[in-house]
Amino acid sequence: MRIGILTAGGDCPGLNAVIRSVVHRGITGHHDEIIGFEDGFKGLLEGRYRPLDLNSVSGILARGGTILGSARLERARLRAAAEDCEQLRRTYELDALIPIGGEGTLTAARMLSDAGMPVVGVPKTIDNDISATDRTFGFDTAVGVATEAIDRLKTTAESHQRVMVVEVMGRHAGWIALESGMAGGAHGILVPERPFDPEDVCAMVRERFARGKKFAVVVVAEGASPAEGTMPFEHGEIDQYGHERFTGIGNRLAVELERRLGKEARTVILGHVQRGGTPTAYDRVLATRFGWHAVEAVHKGAFGHMTALRGTDIVLAPLADAVAELKHVPEDRMDEAESVF
Amino acid sequence: MRIGILTAGGDCPGLNAVIRSVVHRGITGHHDEIIGFEDGFKGLLEGRYRPLDLNSVSGILARGGTILGSARLERARLRAAAEDCEQLRRTYELDALIPIGGEGTLTAARMLSDAGMPVVGVPKTIDNDISATDRTFGFDTAVGVATEAIDRLKTTAESHQRVMVVEVMGRHAGWIALESGMAGGAHGILVPERPFDPEDVCAMVRERFARGKKFAVVVVAEGASPAEGTMPFEHGEIDQYGHERFTGIGNRLAVELERRLGKEARTVILGHVQRGGTPTAYDRVLATRFGWHAVEAVHKGAFGHMTALRGTDIVLAPLADAVAELKHVPEDRMDEAESVF
Amino acid sequence: MRIGILTAGGDCPGLNAVIRSVVHRGITGHHDEIIGFEDGFKGLLEGRYRPLDLNSVSGILARGGTILGSARLERARLRAAAEDCEQLRRTYELDALIPIGGEGTLTAARMLSDAGMPVVGVPKTIDNDISATDRTFGFDTAVGVATEAIDRLKTTAESHQRVMVVEVMGRHAGWIALESGMAGGAHGILVPERPFDPEDVCAMVRERFARGKKFAVVVVAEGASPAEGTMPFEHGEIDQYGHERFTGIGNRLAVELERRLGKEARTVILGHVQRGGTPTAYDRVLATRFGWHAVEAVHKGAFGHMTALRGTDIVLAPLADAVAELKHVPEDRMDEAESVF
Amino acid sequence: MRIGILTAGGDCPGLNAVIRSVVHRGITGHHDEIIGFEDGFKGLLEGRYRPLDLNSVSGILARGGTILGSARLERARLRAAAEDCEQLRRTYELDALIPIGGEGTLTAARMLSDAGMPVVGVPKTIDNDISATDRTFGFDTAVGVATEAIDRLKTTAESHQRVMVVEVMGRHAGWIALESGMAGGAHGILVPERPFDPEDVCAMVRERFARGKKFAVVVVAEGASPAEGTMPFEHGEIDQYGHERFTGIGNRLAVELERRLGKEARTVILGHVQRGGTPTAYDRVLATRFGWHAVEAVHKGAFGHMTALRGTDIVLAPLADAVAELKHVPEDRMDEAESVF
Repeated sequence: MRIGILTAGGDCPGLNAVIRSVVHRGITGHHDEIIGFEDGFKGLLEGRYRPLDLNSVSGILARGGTILGSARLERARLRAAAEDCEQLRRTYELDALIPIGGEGTLTAARMLSDAGMPVVGVPKTIDNDISATDRTFGFDTAVGVATEAIDRLKTTAESHQRVMVVEVMGRHAGWIALESGMAGGAHGILVPERPFDPEDVCAMVRERFARGKKFAVVVVAEGASPAEGTMPFEHGEIDQYGHERFTGIGNRLAVELERRLGKEARTVILGHVQRGGTPTAYDRVLATRFGWHAVEAVHKGAFGHMTALRGTDIVLAPLADAVAELKHVPEDRMDEAESVF
Repeated sequence: MRIGILTAGGDCPGLNAVIRSVVHRGITGHHDEIIGFEDGFKGLLEGRYRPLDLNSVSGILARGGTILGSARLERARLRAAAEDCEQLRRTYELDALIPIGGEGTLTAARMLSDAGMPVVGVPKTIDNDISATDRTFGFDTAVGVATEAIDRLKTTAESHQRVMVVEVMGRHAGWIALESGMAGGAHGILVPERPFDPEDVCAMVRERFARGKKFAVVVVAEGASPAEGTMPFEHGEIDQYGHERFTGIGNRLAVELERRLGKEARTVILGHVQRGGTPTAYDRVLATRFGWHAVEAVHKGAFGHMTALRGTDIVLAPLADAVAELKHVPEDRMDEAESVF
Repeated sequence: MRIGILTAGGDCPGLNAVIRSVVHRGITGHHDEIIGFEDGFKGLLEGRYRPLDLNSVSGILARGGTILGSARLERARLRAAAEDCEQLRRTYELDALIPIGGEGTLTAARMLSDAGMPVVGVPKTIDNDISATDRTFGFDTAVGVATEAIDRLKTTAESHQRVMVVEVMGRHAGWIALESGMAGGAHGILVPERPFDPEDVCAMVRERFARGKKFAVVVVAEGASPAEGTMPFEHGEIDQYGHERFTGIGNRLAVELERRLGKEARTVILGHVQRGGTPTAYDRVLATRFGWHAVEAVHKGAFGHMTALRGTDIVLAPLADAVAELKHVPEDRMDEAESVF
Repeated sequence: MRIGILTAGGDCPGLNAVIRSVVHRGITGHHDEIIGFEDGFKGLLEGRYRPLDLNSVSGILARGGTILGSARLERARLRAAAEDCEQLRRTYELDALIPIGGEGTLTAARMLSDAGMPVVGVPKTIDNDISATDRTFGFDTAVGVATEAIDRLKTTAESHQRVMVVEVMGRHAGWIALESGMAGGAHGILVPERPFDPEDVCAMVRERFARGKKFAVVVVAEGASPAEGTMPFEHGEIDQYGHERFTGIGNRLAVELERRLGKEARTVILGHVQRGGTPTAYDRVLATRFGWHAVEAVHKGAFGHMTALRGTDIVLAPLADAVAELKHVPEDRMDEAESVF
């Protein structure tokens, strides 16, 4: 069979491991021909692709990024493409397409699938917020990077008797904040799922100082926000280029904590270091297994599905389910985390 | 309630995270009193214990080892103790006992439980071979250490055009070999579950050299062994102190490969570095959740059980199930791994 | 002899290694008595100190921060203290004082020394900008953290075809930017010593894109600034609490590059992660040697000096020299770095 | 100018950084032409080489190993080549040759230089035992890997109340043992420069146990050996293939300590993980600077020299000096180390 593969959306550790696995399993397991489209769906529409053999994926398992490149594509252009789906398929003589990406990509994958393209998706997001799978690759690496940063920041916070606010990724779901906060032993974890009252954070800090612990570390997801009326400050400035800049929740919270507590508070915004670089062993294994099972799904004709982790098994989930709703941090996970602050 | 806690068996990253979590959840969630027995069951029998408060578990989350110590205890002595179980319980005024340990410890826990001790176990093994749980803490750290070593060894193997044999832990189950081999991109993975023929390893190496890849890395679990008749060498020497020494499968295999292939082969035995030191974020989270749920189980009266991971949930599994049989690497996992060699 | 020790100024990996080394060498080498003042000079003035024995420094070698705490002290208060120097010395029955700190601390140390206190200083700064020594401990750790971040950011920059600006520490000297930029393979390094023209950065980026490299990473020290007239933007906003906030050079530069290049630019401000956490092996060794030689200097009566690295030797440098002027990045080091962009 | 470059001898983190630096500096700084010989001097003799441009060294800075390959060459064959030196030079139209390697390579470089080849050497050894330079690249990485292993082993040693012997590289000089032992906080360091008495190690262990520290870690260089008459055991077995196997000093010492102390002792032999994989920031900077200065030396006509670190400067040292004698660990460095056991 002739299988196309592409990576779309943001950078995520493990993308190369999926590509490598698809190529190995396809070629050595089934004598498939694999072609890789460049820069996501753009390459598919613009005819930019290259054949992938074993040598072309040699040495990429441990490397971050994606050897195929990635780019965002306007939904409209993709919709037009979907209407021409059969044409695309014939052009490339594709027996199957394996797009690897996040919610946007999987929605696009579903659109193509509905239009007749034989698609098997592979979910990808460092945010871990795709419903149909227990975990996504990239998440473990992001949590690892954030945890190491928290480990380092604790000694600084302690020796300066400060409150340290660590802003991590997570616009809509607080998984990275939850797990890095638990792993790093943070004293507060703020997530998008649960609007916070800064006064609760202050109470925690005061309680710690009262029992002789002269510092605190608070992890806040970039998408966390104060409960209505609890933190009545203005929004960030819109600069001359139209960006709202320098005004993330981490910085806002540190200002607010300083004001209320009369203690030094500092913010570290981890940013892009969470999504680049070499994947953890966990993510390499998960990504490799996803690639393997995507090829198997192609050969079983299980189109319209994506690979998913359930317990210790890799299963296939309908693309429709995958993008139905985001997987949020449930209340009981927050309860667990808060009990060890 | 008054809850005793102890750690038994080999070192495992995450033990301190469990202890910390039990203490935090017990004290702040339920106003429990927690006492820690020293050196495992030995401390229980010999009356060595200390009260654990929040300060006593401060700063231990990221530390390897166990602040309570660990020691092996003869089965006979423990059996005698079980008969005196009610006495022990009254002596310490225990409402519950939380032993953290591997197969041996959980078997002992079950024995005490059957004898009337209110026990909730927490499984621990870097080998990941306990049946009733998807994963155990410590395993992710061990795999991470082994993977980093394989990453490093690959460049050495390549520049010296060598075969490199990496011996990892796993006496009865090959989980560490499987996952570190997949994550490190090994070209051969040998596990106890599947006796190997050294000729198959040689075939793989020859095939690689034939297509221009002038090195190979083989990961072998310490408990792996050749299929009968395939590697007719002698066993290791018994030295003057009665130890069988210097004769692990890794060294034996390298000698065999050199002989058959006429190429340099070298062995690295990772040994104890796999089981010490700071746990990964994954293991800290899992250990913390296990501790939390063990305390909840105590307060629900769910004795005779241990905590277990199923998918993303922590559940309770009967101790009887936990130790019924080892969790082996299944065939399909080996098939996945082999397809990306 | 009775030796006092204190740590002052900002957090720096390796402080605990110095403390441990002073205690070990003093006690086991010379039967000294060591006392540790808490929170830097504050503890000295306020009578807060504790005796340090071997057990009190057990397990701290690899830990960030300082077990003695640190705090800033107003110069005036210290000057008053200096006048009372003899009194302080008699109060604590000090035969010597070993202050560990940066430029401010060493200046204070010199003041005390001039006033008659028998002082041996130990230099400390992650910025590596103290003249009299080849290197200071903490610097290697900071460079290592920054380099790992750059490694990670490169894959993200590449897959998104972006310019990534990484802001590292260095208010007055660009050592961290220089070495992490070289080690990470950055394509531009901006330091306080050499005001930059953003157009030069743009030229480099354009040249890279012209030869097919679709990303660039620029490392900028927090104290770097544009040459006069080259980047005519406003300074940061002064917020309601009097802080100039969210307006570091990293963010300013990214805005400027986006405007000039018409390409996405993003900033990561590494911040405090550079100065906390476990020290590298290099820093542990250097810190340990500094502690050892400080004790030897005390016993030789070489007061008014500080320990310094020269080549592979630890020597003693007059405190006066140490604080005479900052050690800046010389031109030829920048030339070296720029040739491998 | 047309410059040849080659890497010879064992794997060493930083080799690729030198190659990259030579190519960048040569091409962008001097419009040189660079060719890389494959597999060390072998490629030079056998005519295997390839031109190196900027793209060919893209992305290699952080990678272990050498993109040029390395191989050992019999001295005799090289000597013959030296006699034909002028012929070799004309064949490749070489204006200069930059060999990167250890003692053997530098000796060969000197031989070629004496025979008329315009040579600038770059020293390389993880062992740090080359006289004319303060440090060599690769050493910092090796020490870092060993230190991390010791960090991990300490918790295991502690929870099992064991003596842990860690065997590190260093056949003739004990630098890795010295610095990793200091950085890891080992309780004994044994180096080739100072034959040891196992009874001294036992005394240290007993003293530790006596004051309540129930474990000890001893770092031993592979080339360390007992003082005459102190450890009268047999040498290792010679196996059927003529190798002396499984009998390193680490294993011998553990057996001896068990016998004398009646306590469990275990050995970990770190082996090849010390010499592979990504270099530390320190090594990348040093290697990059060596490459830069080698090219400058070529353009200054400073042949017959090698690059060397002196303090913070890169200088040129005569090849004759470089290989005159090994740089051994001096007594005072051992004294420093021993005072913090």
